[in-house]
Order: sequence, then C-alpha cells, then structure tokens
Amino acid sequence: MFRPRTTQEVADIVRACAVEQRRITIQGGLTGLAGGASPDADDVVVSLERLNQIVEFDEIGGTLTVQAGMVLQSVCEHVENAGWYFPLDFGSRGSCQIGGNVSTNAGGNRVLRYGTARELVLGLEVVLPDGQIVSMLNKGLKNNTGIDLKHLFIGSEGSLGLITKVVLRLFPKPEARYSALVGLESFEQVAALLKSARANLPGLSSFEVMWQDYMVAACGAISREVPFNGEHPLYVLLETEGKLSARNENDLQEWLETQIEAEVVADVILPQSGEQAAQLWHIRDAIGELLAGMAPYVAFDVGVPLSKTPDFIHTVRTKLKQSYPQAQSLYFGHLGDGNLHIVTGPYDESVLIDVEALVYDEISAVGGSISAEHGIGRIKKPFLFHSRNAEELGLMRSLKQLIDPDRRFNAGRIYPD
Amino acid sequence: MFRPRTTQEVADIVRACAVEQRRITIQGGLTGLAGGASPDADDVVVSLERLNQIVEFDEIGGTLTVQAGMVLQSVCEHVENAGWYFPLDFGSRGSCQIGGNVSTNAGGNRVLRYGTARELVLGLEVVLPDGQIVSMLNKGLKNNTGIDLKHLFIGSEGSLGLITKVVLRLFPKPEARYSALVGLESFEQVAALLKSARANLPGLSSFEVMWQDYMVAACGAISREVPFNGEHPLYVLLETEGKLSARNENDLQEWLETQIEAEVVADVILPQSGEQAAQLWHIRDAIGELLAGMAPYVAFDVGVPLSKTPDFIHTVRTKLKQSYPQAQSLYFGHLGDGNLHIVTGPYDESVLIDVEALVYDEISAVGGSISAEHGIGRIKKPFLFHSRNAEELGLMRSLKQLIDPDRRFNAGRIYPD
Repeated sequence: MFRPRTTQEVADIVRACAVEQRRITIQGGLTGLAGGASPDADDVVVSLERLNQIVEFDEIGGTLTVQAGMVLQSVCEHVENAGWYFPLDFGSRGSCQIGGNVSTNAGGNRVLRYGTARELVLGLEVVLPDGQIVSMLNKGLKNNTGIDLKHLFIGSEGSLGLITKVVLRLFPKPEARYSALVGLESFEQVAALLKSARANLPGLSSFEVMWQDYMVAACGAISREVPFNGEHPLYVLLETEGKLSARNENDLQEWLETQIEAEVVADVILPQSGEQAAQLWHIRDAIGELLAGMAPYVAFDVGVPLSKTPDFIHTVRTKLKQSYPQAQSLYFGHLGDGNLHIVTGPYDESVLIDVEALVYDEISAVGGSISAEHGIGRIKKPFLFHSRNAEELGLMRSLKQLIDPDRRFNAGRIYPD
Repeated sequence: MFRPRTTQEVADIVRACAVEQRRITIQGGLTGLAGGASPDADDVVVSLERLNQIVEFDEIGGTLTVQAGMVLQSVCEHVENAGWYFPLDFGSRGSCQIGGNVSTNAGGNRVLRYGTARELVLGLEVVLPDGQIVSMLNKGLKNNTGIDLKHLFIGSEGSLGLITKVVLRLFPKPEARYSALVGLESFEQVAALLKSARANLPGLSSFEVMWQDYMVAACGAISREVPFNGEHPLYVLLETEGKLSARNENDLQEWLETQIEAEVVADVILPQSGEQAAQLWHIRDAIGELLAGMAPYVAFDVGVPLSKTPDFIHTVRTKLKQSYPQAQSLYFGHLGDGNLHIVTGPYDESVLIDVEALVYDEISAVGGSISAEHGIGRIKKPFLFHSRNAEELGLMRSLKQLIDPDRRFNAGRIYPD
C-alpha cells in the first residue's frame, strides 16, 4: 500500500506499476457502497489519505481547490468558517474523501437544490493509467473549449483516472435550515406536494419520502415514538435553507397550511428547534440501526421515474412477498431526485442474488437506473445491462480500452466482461 | 443538403457518407457564433430542421423529450403552457434549435440559477460517425451506472456525434420576474453585491454587469437616455424569479436599500412594470445595434476569474488603446457566471487577428477561458492552446480519433492540427 502526499508521487507510483505490470486499487475513505475499493489479491493499493491539503481558497470567486484525499467534513467546515458553503452532505461525511465523492458522483440530501457532485466540480487534476498528469483546474462556471474532459473522470469510479485535485464550486452559507414532517394519504399527493414545494419554497433543499413500513420500522429501531402514530401511508421530510428570520419560518408554516387546505397534506409536524428537527432527521437516517435487524438483507439504491414509482413499489412489494413471505421490504429515499432506496430482508444467503435480479428486472421495465447514487463497483456489475444498452456498453468499453488498455485501474469493476 | 425527419434517416445518411467517404457538416438554427456550422466545399450538409417533434412530455416527473431540431422558443412555450419552465434563454431563441444548444453547451441569461445547457440535459440520443445510434434517454436526475457518456456529446459541437433527441429537465414555472438596475462605484462593490444577492435573493436568476462605456454606447445605439446620466463606472442589471406578490417586490426593494446603506450600491432604478423592465434589458441586449457602428470589430466571449476581472480589463483596455488608439473597447457580460464579453473596434481588417492574440494572451495570463459559452468552431481554433494544455489537447485528439477516426463530422473545427 502506498500513501502518496503529492501528485508527482502518485504519478511515479502509477508509472512504476505500469512498468511492473501491476494493477492498482484506488482507495479513499472506504465508505463506498458498491465494493469499488476492495482490492484483488495482487493489487497495489494507492490510498489518498495523505493527499489532503488545501491548494487554494478563492473567497471572491467562491471556489476551493483541494487535494483529493481531504475528508468531506473538513472541506465543508473550512469554507463555512469563512461564510461560504459546500452543500454535498451525507452520513459518511466524517470519513469519506472528496476525491471519492467526485469519482463516484456522490449525491446525498441536497441534490434537489445543488445537484450531485458532478454539478459541484469545476475542475480536476487526474493521473492517467500510464502515469500522465492531466491538469484541468478550471475555476469558471462556463468554459466551452472543446470536449469537457473532466466528465470522463467524474462518476467513473476510478476506472479511467486517479483524481488528485478538485476545484469545488461554493455557495453563500445559509444562515438557517427549517424542516417539516408531513403525513400524506397517497403518492399523488406526494407528487403534488413536491411540485408545489419547488414552486413556492425557493430555499427548498431536501425532499425525502418514507413509506409507512419504513417509518414504523425505523422508529422501532431507534426506540422512539412514531410521529402521527404511524397512521399515514406516506411521509415527507423536507428542508429549506435561508436567512435566519421569523419570516422564513412563517413562510414555511403558511405554505404548509395551504397544502392542508388543498387536502394535499393530512398532518404536519413543524419542529420548534434545531434539536427537534434533528430528531426527525434521525428517523430518516436510521438505516444502520434498521439493517442490523434485517440481515441477511439487500439494500437497493435505484432511480425510478416519479410517475412510475407507486406501481413499481406495488409490483416489487407483491412479488417479493409472494416468493419470500418471511422477508420485509421497506421503501424510502430522496424522492425529490427520483432516487428510491429499498432495504429488504432477512433472506437466506443463497437467494440474495435472486432478490437483486427480481428488483432489477422491474427497474428495466420502468426504464430506471440500477444505481442512482452508489455506483456500480463490483456489486452491481452483473446487473449493469439492466440500465445500459449494448451500444452504451460498447462505447464505455472503447473508452476504457483507449485510456486504460492494460486494465491497470480498479480492474474487474463496472465493465461487464 | 439533407433534411431528415427521423433518427433512422439520419443514421442512414451518416452510414451512406461513411461508405462514400464523404464529410458531414451538421446544421441547426445557424445562429452559432464560432463558425461551427459553415461547411467546407465538399461537405454533405445535414440539417436538423425537420427533426422537430415532441417525443414525450412527462408532466409529473418534469421532463420533456424532443427531437433535436425543435426551435428553443417552441420548447419553452410548449412547457410553459402546462405550468412548467425550461429556463435556457438568449437572443436567438426564435431560430436556434435545442440540439445546437446542447452540442454547444449554450449559456445565456440564467446560468447563475439554472446552469448551462449541460445541467439541463438528462439524456440524449446520438448518431455516431459510423452511423450507430446510441440511445441514452435517461430521465432521472441521478444515474450512476458507469461512464456518463452524454457528456462526450454535450459541448463538443458535433465533433463526436450528431444529437437526434434530447431529454430536458424542467422546472416549475415562476409567476413573475423582477428586475433592478443599480449603479456602483467600483468592482469591489460589484463582487460584494453579487455575494449578497446570492445569499439574500433565493430567486436570483440573472446578474449582468455593464461597464460605463458600454452603457453609454449602448444607449446611444438605441437612442435612449442613459440611466443615472451614465455617471457611475459600473452597472448591474439583475433579475429574480418567484411568486407574483407585493412581498417579492418589497423584498427586492428592501434588500437594495440595505445595499445602499452599506454603500455597496450608489443608485437604483426599480422598474414598476414589465415594460419598464424590458427597456432596461434592451440596453443589455443592444449588441446588434452597437456592433453595426463598430465594424470591423472583434467580439470576445471569455471566462475570467472574478477576482482578476478588474485588472484584466484594465490591462486589455490599456494595451488596446496603446496599439490601436482609434478603436474603442466595451465591456459587459454575465458576470455572475464569470463570463465577460468584449466588443472592440473599428480596426483595419489586417490587424483583427493581432487583436485576438492580444486579448487571448491576457486570458492565458489569468488562467481564463477563450470561450465561456460560444464554443470554438472554426474561429477560435487557432487560439485553443491558450485555454487547453498539451495533455488536454492530447486526450481530446485521442477521443476524436477513437470515435471519428475518418474525421467525418464537422472536420476542421475545434481540434488544432
């Protein structure tokens, strides 16, 4: 294992591996959920953990240039201390590295407002599998000078290049966040609420949906009372960002009242403090506690068109119950982005792959994505054909063949053989 | 010239050209500003004008799938009639086609809020130079399933593939727009105003800057009085979108008052009607009228880091004046996005290329972009090295060689020989 401190050291290691015909596994914070960082037996492991310095903080233009091994939480805290904001956020923030976030095109809770990692990256520096350093440290929002090469490396999970530096786009730091939990009676109402929220809440930053069984199970797992006694089939936990003002709180409250009057929303909890809001978010974030009791389980991170979501869930729930009556399936996720999470178990180890196949078949049927945010890695490689057709896979293989003909970087991941 | 109506017809033409070893120039609305659509003598011209139908309008998920030849204004009007909004907008909206917008990664007036065309595209269908149809009609905001191939075709100006369909991301339609024109005394204040606007105006959609000589010249060209008697060195024309409410107008007014109190802003015009606002925007859009009186001129569309903008302008203005005292240079642009426009003239035809070289040398010096939004085409090809280093150009050429080895599509554009 190597832990380089500079781009030049990285390039030297990569070049040495090319000469020695060794394969490389790139490691960041080891928080990925697709098995992309687990090495094969003979792989040289290159860890980015010491490549963690700030290169430049442009406090006028609003950009931060960092080495790829910097931990996400450190990135966020550094800019917040100066009144700026990097909005990428999710549970592993204290361990994951920005290079890993970019190479997997991480999503998280605020994609609805700020986009995925891809939309937050202005420039990159990468080392190619032959050891060449390609510096594309653009800082501008707009730069139309030929092919936008950075997009080859964002979201391709280290398979084409090793990211060594990132130029991040910053935003003004919001003064406050406001959350609300609502209970609804149908998915039609959820979709109506989302459209109204996008139109009426300019600071809308998160729109998370939990189905009833998830809500009840999650509260059970963290030993807290179920809001609304769990009597509604659907729950939305939303968040807005903005100035710290009574007016913003009132705006949110007034909008919620209009949604109650319009019979879109059946019930509302409006937290009166940061702690109360955090308790609600704890329910949404209770995955770890939940999964502990469901093993062996399968966890899905899928993209489903909003209009097809209720039928998709109904079909999957029904088919799973028919084939595996002893297992439960729970549904929740970043529905504002069309990203649905499913956790289902317990199963016998031997049928886990059949459960995956069942769900991914239904994903094909709705033209969805087998991986909305977690990536393909090793785990979803056998199922990639559900979301990518033959022409797409052909073009992907050609690009891999062009840039990494000897399969030096993260071999055996993503590209079906 | 061919005017195909379906993707299959396009693919057939492309395949026939490959067999006959003919080169193709792809044409959309012929509004591009980099000469990318002008054919060589023996080129087969493929016009997208008849490929202009709507494929699917998902009014729940908020996506519109269209054939690439649909005119931008038609796209916008179609979705607005149903309460949705496609925010890409600029002067040529009545002629330009969405396929051209995507292939050039068009920008326009609302990049600050909604991003460039790249951020508004969810999926594509393209025909490759060998005639293969690659369908990537993703509709989800999040889809991490390997390399995101569409980014090869967005902004690469037809050099890698011919776009035949586009899946567009829609937004809720704003009820109203509010504009304000302010006069400021220094660029420091412009930067402070921008940061405050982004933090305090959640509906901020445009932030355009005009330097004094542009303001005076533009008003002269359209025969109107100069706001504030043209006494300020800098002007910002900004726009917010949101609900139609007295409250939104008051919010904008109150915020402007705080900026006056903080001595960021020296003077304000707050239009009381849509027509008054339109008159202000007419000054910003008066390029055509201005250029008529400055020929032979050079028009620049550059990306400059915000913090370096005043020095950049000072240097360019001074150097141009020294070498060409009879010519004027005017500065304005989408400064919220770091995109500066310069128009300068009149010059003797024989020195136009020297004027370009002078400005692009200064762009190199600040690490800027020679093309923020208009693209490279034929016109900026000789200068591409200012914004792309040898490794980037090498990788771009490799990709062109992989996907279009016979240089069938838009030959002679972008890639320096």
